[in-house]
Amino acid sequence: MSLTNHQFRLAARPIGLPKRSDWNYVEESVRDPGEGELLVKVLYLSLDPAMRGWMNEGKSYIPGVAIGEVMRALGAGKVVASKNPAFAVGDFVTGLFGVQEYVISNGKGLNKADPRVAPLPVFLGALGMPGMTAYFALLDVGQPKAGDMVVVSGAAGAVGMVAGQIAKIKGCSVVGIAGGPEKCRYILDDLHFDAAIDYKAENVRSALQTHCPKGVDVYFDNVGGDILDAVLTQLARGARIVICGAISQYNNTGPVKGPSNYLSLLVNRASMKGIVVFDYADRYGEAAREMAGWIVAGKLKSREDIVAGFETFPETLLKLFKGENTGKLILKVADA
Amino acid sequence: MSLTNHQFRLAARPIGLPKRSDWNYVEESVRDPGEGELLVKVLYLSLDPAMRGWMNEGKSYIPGVAIGEVMRALGAGKVVASKNPAFAVGDFVTGLFGVQEYVISNGKGLNKADPRVAPLPVFLGALGMPGMTAYFALLDVGQPKAGDMVVVSGAAGAVGMVAGQIAKIKGCSVVGIAGGPEKCRYILDDLHFDAAIDYKAENVRSALQTHCPKGVDVYFDNVGGDILDAVLTQLARGARIVICGAISQYNNTGPVKGPSNYLSLLVNRASMKGIVVFDYADRYGEAAREMAGWIVAGKLKSREDIVAGFETFPETLLKLFKGENTGKLILKVADA
Repeated sequence: MSLTNHQFRLAARPIGLPKRSDWNYVEESVRDPGEGELLVKVLYLSLDPAMRGWMNEGKSYIPGVAIGEVMRALGAGKVVASKNPAFAVGDFVTGLFGVQEYVISNGKGLNKADPRVAPLPVFLGALGMPGMTAYFALLDVGQPKAGDMVVVSGAAGAVGMVAGQIAKIKGCSVVGIAGGPEKCRYILDDLHFDAAIDYKAENVRSALQTHCPKGVDVYFDNVGGDILDAVLTQLARGARIVICGAISQYNNTGPVKGPSNYLSLLVNRASMKGIVVFDYADRYGEAAREMAGWIVAGKLKSREDIVAGFETFPETLLKLFKGENTGKLILKVADA
Repeated sequence: MSLTNHQFRLAARPIGLPKRSDWNYVEESVRDPGEGELLVKVLYLSLDPAMRGWMNEGKSYIPGVAIGEVMRALGAGKVVASKNPAFAVGDFVTGLFGVQEYVISNGKGLNKADPRVAPLPVFLGALGMPGMTAYFALLDVGQPKAGDMVVVSGAAGAVGMVAGQIAKIKGCSVVGIAGGPEKCRYILDDLHFDAAIDYKAENVRSALQTHCPKGVDVYFDNVGGDILDAVLTQLARGARIVICGAISQYNNTGPVKGPSNYLSLLVNRASMKGIVVFDYADRYGEAAREMAGWIVAGKLKSREDIVAGFETFPETLLKLFKGENTGKLILKVADA
């Protein structure tokens, strides 16, 4: 076996939006797996907003990627060689593969993906980390009750689309905030949210007054910035704000925009709480089973925005920060 | 009986710091109490940061004071005439009296102050609204556990001094943030906090790293602004931030400074929650009994900064916003 592996290795810490020169494109030959190891051919890579944070130095919920290291990424692939009895050639697996075409693993942290449940990319979306994030952030932190008014930002994104659908399943009214008519149409017509606010075309604050006249009980925030500030003006008494992300702020060259209206937390006896999905690792199985059941029952839809071409990684990643993806953004690396 | 009442009635909504011309000084004659009513001679008025918010228009936790109305204020006084069987002449009472020398009341919302428990001004401080606020905000929202690192801002103020002492009683380590050597000496030497940070002389962020090397478990925030942002950089995993006030922001003519470092809530799975003490009205009795016990046992100290002269109200109020008071700021209106 003589395989060639291509990798994107971190070359520089970006200032503002990442650019191609922040990585080195490297070619290596693939070694054979040793005892207990397996070789995975990467088929799909998950492109996530969190990757921007991983490119930074300094304290966060996990260490940043070191200069020279393969860029961190979740992926889905196929086992092509195995000296690990738990994995057979032909198995489909997901894991933290990195931005590369092949990966040698000892099997730790890998999960098998059952192709009878859903197509492989769904295991990077609704049944993957974004789905787990939506599930635990909404249910554990947001604590929605039937009849609550739930607002989700980044509503057509990988996490937001799942969070909004779970809120609907739980009997809440759901308003999604997204950019552009196509995304708004998607969350209204395909996902059956109760209302959509196009933040690029509407005044978010007045739209919230229209759609949430009694106030917002749960706000699931993926974006931060001005939209977080707008929602803070329309909280219901005892509202819960889930801080899941802040994509509008990740590429700032200046300071993050803090929420000017945070004293609404005081006036409304409301809370704002952060979540990191890794804390729920021991409950992923439980969540995945429930979500798979909803998918099979047609209650939960997954959508992927799949871009082909491993080499396009730097530019394709930027779709996230330009708001160009609808659904889970995935890079297709190879055919099975 | 022919008594004269002087009042400060709201004349204008201030921009920035309030000034004397934002009130009209009015003289009225006092009518006799009707059936079920009593007449209170106001002896002390409580001057609170919240009064600045009450001068604004717009939605808050209670409506603002209307133009022409007597300025809202808590006070302590003596019953000088009564046609209400629940109150006798000579009783000491506290209530929402307004900035005036006499008030007619039907008795609703009034509380008797027992002079054997503590001097009357203490019923506007540790045994009054600031004490109740400290008690419920710290214990109910902050949820401190023995051994926790608790940081209090505005630590030499009416709420902060009590919050820090309760945290000590509960077995926590307590770091107070205050302005100037005199306040820092007070919280260290008199209140026995573990450390004091003089925000006017020290870099708060590095001082927190020194005093809280394992991070801050509970942050009791009375000030907002840059100090809130500094504490956000030093949170422990699962920290609770209690938003009790934001005195640094109340007189802004521009937007409130939102906390730029709020994404630390995400990284540290931390929460930020607002509190309004009125929600705990049905538990004031329970808290007051426990606090009175601590006072009698010498575990909880109260300190009042009493300024004499009803007419000085506008200027004396500003001591709060200039950080000039140590302990509960009180305006002495008259002798008993």
